[in-house]
Amino acid sequence: MATGETPYPALDEAAGDLLFREARTANTFADQPVNEEQVRAIYELVKWGPTAMNSQPLRLVLVRSAQARERLVPLMSEGNRAKTATAPLTLIVTADADFHEHMPTTFPHKPDARESLAGHPGRERIARFNASIQLGYLIIGIRAIGLAAGPMAGFDADAVKKEFLGDTNQEPVAVVNIGRPGPDAWVGRNPRLEFDQVVTTV
Amino acid sequence: MATGETPYPALDEAAGDLLFREARTANTFADQPVNEEQVRAIYELVKWGPTAMNSQPLRLVLVRSAQARERLVPLMSEGNRAKTATAPLTLIVTADADFHEHMPTTFPHKPDARESLAGHPGRERIARFNASIQLGYLIIGIRAIGLAAGPMAGFDADAVKKEFLGDTNQEPVAVVNIGRPGPDAWVGRNPRLEFDQVVTTV
Repeated sequence: MATGETPYPALDEAAGDLLFREARTANTFADQPVNEEQVRAIYELVKWGPTAMNSQPLRLVLVRSAQARERLVPLMSEGNRAKTATAPLTLIVTADADFHEHMPTTFPHKPDARESLAGHPGRERIARFNASIQLGYLIIGIRAIGLAAGPMAGFDADAVKKEFLGDTNQEPVAVVNIGRPGPDAWVGRNPRLEFDQVVTTV
Repeated sequence: MATGETPYPALDEAAGDLLFREARTANTFADQPVNEEQVRAIYELVKWGPTAMNSQPLRLVLVRSAQARERLVPLMSEGNRAKTATAPLTLIVTADADFHEHMPTTFPHKPDARESLAGHPGRERIARFNASIQLGYLIIGIRAIGLAAGPMAGFDADAVKKEFLGDTNQEPVAVVNIGRPGPDAWVGRNPRLEFDQVVTTV
């Protein structure tokens, strides 16, 4: 961190470790519930992350009952079933293409936003893009309250939509297990790309 | 924050303020350069954020020279031109659909990943989804070193690709101004959706 150079507040080492450097995707979880108050604490933090036009298309379905879990597990890819069956709490993260219905409240200085988006062919794409950015915030927010996230892209999205999203205009973007990490929650860390493989300057 | 309830490390109030609660999207910037070391500090933090199959498709083009900035500004939407013309540093954030070329290094326990993704029709979508998640991490990482981010989705993506991404397989997903906030860097904060508008339980 370049904190030595910055005459303004910067994140301390422990926080950087908690959110990024030491945090890991968990594949097993301790037998310790995740309660409503914890989910609220996560949301109340990550809701502040910015989205285009303050669109906030992310929605969460908390899969809490045993019956709901039983409906979800078979829709996951094979390698994601055991962990989803045993996680304390599983979130279906969706993108709501009807986010524009909230815009008179969320984006009040552009009164025609709802109307102009109503017929916009790219609305679903805008929803998915911004919900994906918010998924990044959400993973950080789960870690911020001391839990581990296990985000998964491997599931039958059409079936999850049909089973859980009913008559909404939401599309699932990820399924995320959350809880305290269990025994052997992860294997060795995979390498990250080097700065020079990612960044060019013009 | 539910920190009082968690017997394990959680983010402190100041860090939550820095990254989420007090952080704002900046529309003006102080006349103070953003140097290479600061960009490295951001990357070295956010590179640890998880992506599907450790795919890490995010790439950054740092628009640093006056000539490059002059090529970029007219490709931005009108409302994004003045701030992009005056920001200390502007990043073009892209999704690299050729991320799979790195997978022998980044995902070594699945040796056929590169080959099986080479002909995968969804590769561009995977790249865009994961780069968008990483954009979430990036915005947090910019704030983590005490800078403000000004992410923008309003620009001519085809023109930016043609002008800056040449013969790569990258697509621009966002353009982000970074720096210290300047005078009147933001207006009043827009409302966020309530927990019950976002979260349902099954």
